[in-house]
Amino acid sequence: MTDAFSFELRATDAQARTGVIKTPKGDIRTPAFMPVGTAGTVKAMLPGHVRATGADIVLGNTYHLMLRPTAERVAALGGLHKFMNWPHPILTDSGGFQVMSLSKLRKLTEDGVSFQSHIDGSRHMLTPERSIEIQCLLGSDIQMQLDECPAIPIAHDDARQSMELSARWAVRSKRAFEEKSKPGQALFGIVQGANFEDLRRDSLDRLLEIDFPGYSVGGLAVGEGREEMFRVLEFTTPHMTVAKPRYLMGVGKPADLVGAVARGIDMFDCVAPTRSGRHGQAWTKTGAINIKNARYADDPEPLDAQSDCPPSRDYSKAYLNHLFRAGEYLGPMLLSWHNLQYYQDLMAGMREAISAGRFGAFIADFKATTGEEIV
Amino acid sequence: MTDAFSFELRATDAQARTGVIKTPKGDIRTPAFMPVGTAGTVKAMLPGHVRATGADIVLGNTYHLMLRPTAERVAALGGLHKFMNWPHPILTDSGGFQVMSLSKLRKLTEDGVSFQSHIDGSRHMLTPERSIEIQCLLGSDIQMQLDECPAIPIAHDDARQSMELSARWAVRSKRAFEEKSKPGQALFGIVQGANFEDLRRDSLDRLLEIDFPGYSVGGLAVGEGREEMFRVLEFTTPHMTVAKPRYLMGVGKPADLVGAVARGIDMFDCVAPTRSGRHGQAWTKTGAINIKNARYADDPEPLDAQSDCPPSRDYSKAYLNHLFRAGEYLGPMLLSWHNLQYYQDLMAGMREAISAGRFGAFIADFKATTGEEIV
Repeated sequence: MTDAFSFELRATDAQARTGVIKTPKGDIRTPAFMPVGTAGTVKAMLPGHVRATGADIVLGNTYHLMLRPTAERVAALGGLHKFMNWPHPILTDSGGFQVMSLSKLRKLTEDGVSFQSHIDGSRHMLTPERSIEIQCLLGSDIQMQLDECPAIPIAHDDARQSMELSARWAVRSKRAFEEKSKPGQALFGIVQGANFEDLRRDSLDRLLEIDFPGYSVGGLAVGEGREEMFRVLEFTTPHMTVAKPRYLMGVGKPADLVGAVARGIDMFDCVAPTRSGRHGQAWTKTGAINIKNARYADDPEPLDAQSDCPPSRDYSKAYLNHLFRAGEYLGPMLLSWHNLQYYQDLMAGMREAISAGRFGAFIADFKATTGEEIV
Repeated sequence: MTDAFSFELRATDAQARTGVIKTPKGDIRTPAFMPVGTAGTVKAMLPGHVRATGADIVLGNTYHLMLRPTAERVAALGGLHKFMNWPHPILTDSGGFQVMSLSKLRKLTEDGVSFQSHIDGSRHMLTPERSIEIQCLLGSDIQMQLDECPAIPIAHDDARQSMELSARWAVRSKRAFEEKSKPGQALFGIVQGANFEDLRRDSLDRLLEIDFPGYSVGGLAVGEGREEMFRVLEFTTPHMTVAKPRYLMGVGKPADLVGAVARGIDMFDCVAPTRSGRHGQAWTKTGAINIKNARYADDPEPLDAQSDCPPSRDYSKAYLNHLFRAGEYLGPMLLSWHNLQYYQDLMAGMREAISAGRFGAFIADFKATTGEEIV
């Protein structure tokens, strides 16, 4: 434990990296996958089980929490860690992405974005300063600057204007963070610029000038496809500071993670394992399956007999199939847990392979066993 | 462990009793509360957590399981214990009660009851023989005869006819059980007769003549109210065999359990703790509360700071309130667990008080702390 935020790069294998982010709330082994705890809970999971899968950190969503139960209420109750019974590191996003995707009647100005809550229609304003204020009220260990996150495809001119706005918001976010934050908390800048190499470089240069303890790659996984995402990473990450963590926001499926680690990314978050789990999709060593499929109704085998994870080992596919057909809570509970374990095992496998200098073999094996072609 | 079914009465205090039912799958301490695992899962609970609350046995519903996933499928997968990952004792009902309350187009004859599934409209026939066949396919340790369970109020003549049909079905159930069951499994007869003393006595006499290893009191908690239920118990249990377990079916709320134990009952099942938990009601030492109430939105206290049970101890009422308002899975998960722990602690408290000869003081304390008047 330390009262400062730091990143220690321990090994590299080609572009892939493994290391440790140190925070006052605990260490985060990278490459790291952060389960998403949208509204102060990783859906259908007990926090102790999230931890047991090997998660060092979870993500909270500023947009959801500011609306309900509100950041002020969470602060009065002792902060988000205590509120959700997760004493380990927490990262929060800025709220900007979800304002654009979930809220109603939003209006973007230089100052920030005004919007109506999707829950009760109440009006709110999110500025770089207010986003940082909320994240500090929540008490998150790693915070994000407010940014604008346009969809791809987008015209070069529009992408430039959006990126420049995000860069100006980065300056304001940093200033607000310096006023409000506590020792050991960290603010990350977010690289934007859609799929344009010049804009990504320009965005990064502006952020490097401000100087952040970590950098996120934003604006990907917004419909551009895996190949295009990897192409953007290939011209972005080589210019990112080696000694600081790199976080690819909102990504992704297992093949996305493996491919992005190969391109120099250290941190990920995604709702995929829990959302898929709630809908009956299970990742296995040989690829994803839909447990609701009739072929599993009589299958006595568990998802992974070799696993130490109870949902993977102790319940037959037939039982899981039954739970989903009957609409029982236990189906989503078990598959969310199983999928999170799959993701954490994948990350642990990558960390080990990079440390041992055999990440190339790891990728080849991953492609062969899952049938994924683009990694 | 034993390969036979037996009941050992260990202490009594006035009409209240404490003892142990021994089965090949494990001991059941009485008075016992059996969480209900309707469709092969105690809703929103992991089986390990059901066990951790102190449950020695759970209940499975023949009606639900025969329709989905079907008894034949469960048998092919190794039986209900293995299917639901619960290696401890299981009791199944006969299916009769839920055919009458859930199915469509049912028709009652001397032979049994034909009905349409509420799930897919498929047609089925439940006879005493088929009910036992299903319960044996499931592999349940304690099985119930098929009976008819009329609502109260009912005319004396109708109640007599219904009770006599149940008594004839008891004979057929016993015969089928002797053919199909395995050593150590037990079949209980069910006392019917609505709220008529002469019919209850007559029903019991007919069952005693058949001779069962345990007796259920059926046909209560069907709208007659707590006082009337207790009145029926008062003229029924004194005539039941002292050396055999007595099971009050489908009951109840905490005050029902305490009052029924005081009137000589040993076993209970009810969906109340889990159903209420899913809807935001929590039982506490000072009575039931609705966690969705706005008064809890800022309450930093847990439901029971002194408890060893994680949901009762590790989460504030404010957090639980938030989970229910946000419609998160974790709300029902935590409150179901908390309520089951409350129920098992209540049973453990009764067993201890009866053993120590201070059950009167226990009841007085329960009434004083919960504000319940009729116990």
